[in-house]
Amino acid sequence: MEIKLNFKTLEWKKNKLRLLDQTKLPEQTFYFDCQDYNEVAFAIKELKIRGAPAIGIASAYGVVLGMQKIDFKDKDQYQKNLELVIETLKNTRPTAVNLFWALQRMEKVAKDNLEKSFEKINQTLLNEAKKIHHEDKKMCEKIGQYGAEFLKDNDTVLTHCNAGALATGGIGTALGIIFTACAQGKKIKVFVDETRPVLQGARLTTWELKQQGIAHTLICDITSAWLMKKKLIDCVIVGADRIAKNKDLANKIGTYNLAVLAKYHKIPFYVAAPSSTLDNSVESGEEIKIELRSKEEVINWGGKKTAPETTDVFSPAFDVTPAELVTSIITDKGILKGKRID
Amino acid sequence: MEIKLNFKTLEWKKNKLRLLDQTKLPEQTFYFDCQDYNEVAFAIKELKIRGAPAIGIASAYGVVLGMQKIDFKDKDQYQKNLELVIETLKNTRPTAVNLFWALQRMEKVAKDNLEKSFEKINQTLLNEAKKIHHEDKKMCEKIGQYGAEFLKDNDTVLTHCNAGALATGGIGTALGIIFTACAQGKKIKVFVDETRPVLQGARLTTWELKQQGIAHTLICDITSAWLMKKKLIDCVIVGADRIAKNKDLANKIGTYNLAVLAKYHKIPFYVAAPSSTLDNSVESGEEIKIELRSKEEVINWGGKKTAPETTDVFSPAFDVTPAELVTSIITDKGILKGKRID
Repeated sequence: MEIKLNFKTLEWKKNKLRLLDQTKLPEQTFYFDCQDYNEVAFAIKELKIRGAPAIGIASAYGVVLGMQKIDFKDKDQYQKNLELVIETLKNTRPTAVNLFWALQRMEKVAKDNLEKSFEKINQTLLNEAKKIHHEDKKMCEKIGQYGAEFLKDNDTVLTHCNAGALATGGIGTALGIIFTACAQGKKIKVFVDETRPVLQGARLTTWELKQQGIAHTLICDITSAWLMKKKLIDCVIVGADRIAKNKDLANKIGTYNLAVLAKYHKIPFYVAAPSSTLDNSVESGEEIKIELRSKEEVINWGGKKTAPETTDVFSPAFDVTPAELVTSIITDKGILKGKRID
Repeated sequence: MEIKLNFKTLEWKKNKLRLLDQTKLPEQTFYFDCQDYNEVAFAIKELKIRGAPAIGIASAYGVVLGMQKIDFKDKDQYQKNLELVIETLKNTRPTAVNLFWALQRMEKVAKDNLEKSFEKINQTLLNEAKKIHHEDKKMCEKIGQYGAEFLKDNDTVLTHCNAGALATGGIGTALGIIFTACAQGKKIKVFVDETRPVLQGARLTTWELKQQGIAHTLICDITSAWLMKKKLIDCVIVGADRIAKNKDLANKIGTYNLAVLAKYHKIPFYVAAPSSTLDNSVESGEEIKIELRSKEEVINWGGKKTAPETTDVFSPAFDVTPAELVTSIITDKGILKGKRID
């Protein structure tokens, strides 16, 4: 079943990459047209586009833009330019795995076809970028289909951060499951954690659910325990940034809190993620390094101080949820752990 | 042991009530002088002073200010003015129990002494206001002494919201325990929940700890689970707004979340509150009505929208923590429940 999205996170259009500028959400729906790879690099750096899969796709189109603008005099000049373009795009978000992976794919395609005409190589590059985009869309659809089986009519779902269409090239992962269940005719209600400090839940997930006409209510993060106690939550669905071999997983800070609460209140806790998120090189969650974010994100808000300037702040970007707290991990290749709960 | 505070939440000085303007914290330390009862009412309404005990004390001084300014022609005029003053102060925060209780005490004192000269009645009113203030200070000291027994040298405490000197006429309740333990020579570190949506933790608790020179780190609310998992928290101490007969208690939203987390991670969960908070007319937490706050507090921040304007928001001011999750309730009359844990 194809889900119709009422907005486009990113789109290849008239030889340009059109991005929905996420820094302007929720106040403005503004599309940013990239005509050059530098504009794509700028958009990624400035978080106009975010979410690992979406960044990967944008960078692939960025390579296309970077190679189609110049009259190259020889293959050597072409290769040098390719390196420059890839290097520029790579330096936008230093820890984004999908970004490196997409750029490697683009580089390989260019090198494998280097004996062809510039026009032909560029066409192959565009095809590869579209393929990366299409694969991501299909990945989301698959997760949506597997995951929707876990949702019943009239369920209320709690979600955290934004694991939606705005983070991918398709319908999203955690939100893709909700979209798919709704398209199947199930009535689903969503509670959205605002997700401090950067408020991806408040700014992006509510906007996305609104565009898709799905009933939702925003809450401050620490309110979810009370909702669970009042039996207002049927299940939790979140995304994942990295899944270790033993199925421990790293995701946005606060995910572990929700997993403990779900366990305590006997509520299923589901994780939705591309199978590529599974990193068998990491044995357990213990090995996953947690990025610390700047205190400015916590104590500055629209230019207004929320705490004394000199306050010490601890702001990890992620936490690790041990496998034993997870009911099921839903991927595009099926269910990694657990089964549907009735 | 008397704890020296490096700031004054409220103070009777040269026939005026001087308040630390909490709406200007943490950016400015600004004192607001009330010369008239209308200025006190304004200060309470505008949250320049907040915290149930502090509001009660301020309103008592407000009655003094309201009665000392006029040349009354007879007792009838005096009584009419008293009613006007009390009514005005009562209408500032409609649900503040301490406010009504303090105003009742002031009214009773005026009426009991009505046969005396205006000067004498006014002196009695001032004495009563000072007595309310002094009793509150002593209450905080007692809680501090009982509670400090629960803290060991080098403990790290997690606290939520502001149950500090800024909310009382003394050293505070939850923070009073920390101040007392530190004055006893124990080295205590504090993690402070920012406390969405109104950020009392970020704005007030960090400021207060800074004034007292106590090591502290600010976190986003949902980070505490991760800290507990990493064994970085030795105990949780929070305040309480109301304690039912069965010892269930209402406190700032998020308190229940912390209580569940503390249970799961086997960390003591302490509640510090004046014995007056115990409401035997309420059998259990089930009966406590929870105030819902406006969505504006959640989606507007310094004029910047954090979510689409039409988003539905659920923002309860409090939640209820069942007695079985509480290790000890520390009051000015001793320990209501539980004992010191070694």
